[in-house]
Amino acid sequence: MGHTEPRHITGFSNPSVKYLRSLRDKKHRKRSGQFLVEGLRLLTDARRNGFIPKIVALSETREPHPLLSELIDTSAAAGADIITTTPDILARITGKNNPQAVIGAFDCFDISLANIERSSSPIWLVAQAMRDPGNLGTMLRTADGVGAGGLILIDDSADPFSAEAVRASMGAIFTKQLAQTRWEEFLPWLRSSDAQLVAASLRDSVSYRDAAYSAPCFIMVGNESQGLPESYEDAADIRVRLPMHGAADSLNASVAGAVLAYEVLARLESGT
Amino acid sequence: MGHTEPRHITGFSNPSVKYLRSLRDKKHRKRSGQFLVEGLRLLTDARRNGFIPKIVALSETREPHPLLSELIDTSAAAGADIITTTPDILARITGKNNPQAVIGAFDCFDISLANIERSSSPIWLVAQAMRDPGNLGTMLRTADGVGAGGLILIDDSADPFSAEAVRASMGAIFTKQLAQTRWEEFLPWLRSSDAQLVAASLRDSVSYRDAAYSAPCFIMVGNESQGLPESYEDAADIRVRLPMHGAADSLNASVAGAVLAYEVLARLESGT
Repeated sequence: MGHTEPRHITGFSNPSVKYLRSLRDKKHRKRSGQFLVEGLRLLTDARRNGFIPKIVALSETREPHPLLSELIDTSAAAGADIITTTPDILARITGKNNPQAVIGAFDCFDISLANIERSSSPIWLVAQAMRDPGNLGTMLRTADGVGAGGLILIDDSADPFSAEAVRASMGAIFTKQLAQTRWEEFLPWLRSSDAQLVAASLRDSVSYRDAAYSAPCFIMVGNESQGLPESYEDAADIRVRLPMHGAADSLNASVAGAVLAYEVLARLESGT
Repeated sequence: MGHTEPRHITGFSNPSVKYLRSLRDKKHRKRSGQFLVEGLRLLTDARRNGFIPKIVALSETREPHPLLSELIDTSAAAGADIITTTPDILARITGKNNPQAVIGAFDCFDISLANIERSSSPIWLVAQAMRDPGNLGTMLRTADGVGAGGLILIDDSADPFSAEAVRASMGAIFTKQLAQTRWEEFLPWLRSSDAQLVAASLRDSVSYRDAAYSAPCFIMVGNESQGLPESYEDAADIRVRLPMHGAADSLNASVAGAVLAYEVLARLESGT
């Protein structure tokens, strides 16, 4: 377990407990610039991508695990605060009845549009006003699977640093490029260089199987309940629709993005 | 608002409030055989598909709406208990800070495998040990979009009558065929008539773009964390894989199911 003796905390009112618990709240994440990551698997994904927590909180009932030892050693060597505590307190911090045996607090990283290197990938996902953090994390996970460069969030979006988004990303938040911006900033940036903007739309659109895609291809899906604003659709190079054979007129936003992204991948790879 | 005067309830300890609140819990849903549906949109989807609630609870601060009047009239005519109450009590019942202005309790319907009419659709979705009710509801919504007959749940699954699954289905729980069964029952049923079983798998699989699909095609995805058991994969007619170009080895289960389902749809429609 390395050479550092962890601090042991047993009180619900301990300032570290209160601080970690506050990170469940977006307002407190904004203020402190830190976010929570739960579980050895995600913390290991983070470490392997060079992200080291500032605080590590361990359950006193944890089972030993080589990856856990590596996490503690690496974090302690980097100056992290290492805490042991009770499962009850971890439950309080995370809001879960069965909390993970280890959690970490990380510095939020820069998610400005300037960090996106469009030439690094032929496919990019763009989500407009996505409200559900689970959908947001799922889109990051899809970006990983399809080999997209990452995810660009447009307008008022769920917080990518929420525990639910981080969890749903299955670690992709540490491997994919991520940006949060507004349409007024996004569109000039997009048009400043080579790009094809593809909008999922029912209006004046072609079948997603018939459209001609070109890299770098930016696949944009709209808000869960309203879809894309018309002016955003009008700015797209292509509007594509998925077949809707049922009673409803839309798919889950992260599902629609994934179906489109895998179609674009296949078509770019086959050159058709 | 029809001719029935609703009962007005103001106490948290009122038996109807306690009963409705209990329906958030799977154990109580099993015992009572009823489930909760939240919001005018979903309740209207239900009504249009012939599902009438046994209890309707309305916020005293609701806005008038023609669809709400129709819902109340239809429900009252069918003998439903119509209740008005405070937003606070609706928040208590649903566990939400901003509850919908109307909720309904419905009888759970039969979800045995015998209800599935396989000849009614060329595509069926099958989810094995799906744990997340949001994923389950999303698969129902995808089944609607892609024109699948419905969703078959295998083994220990999230409850399709949970509020989260109903919400994520966006009404598809009222339009799609739904069954819950075990593998030992499913496989003989599947093989008792014409069927192609397609398993999402990384093991000994072909690219999902190259496989030859045939109707009725049953698209099976595995548990969120473990994938499909090997013996289930072995029983499939085809094992197909999606490209995984990133660090992770899987997609969200409902995303994987949707990408496959839309591929199968396109290929069956084009006859290739």
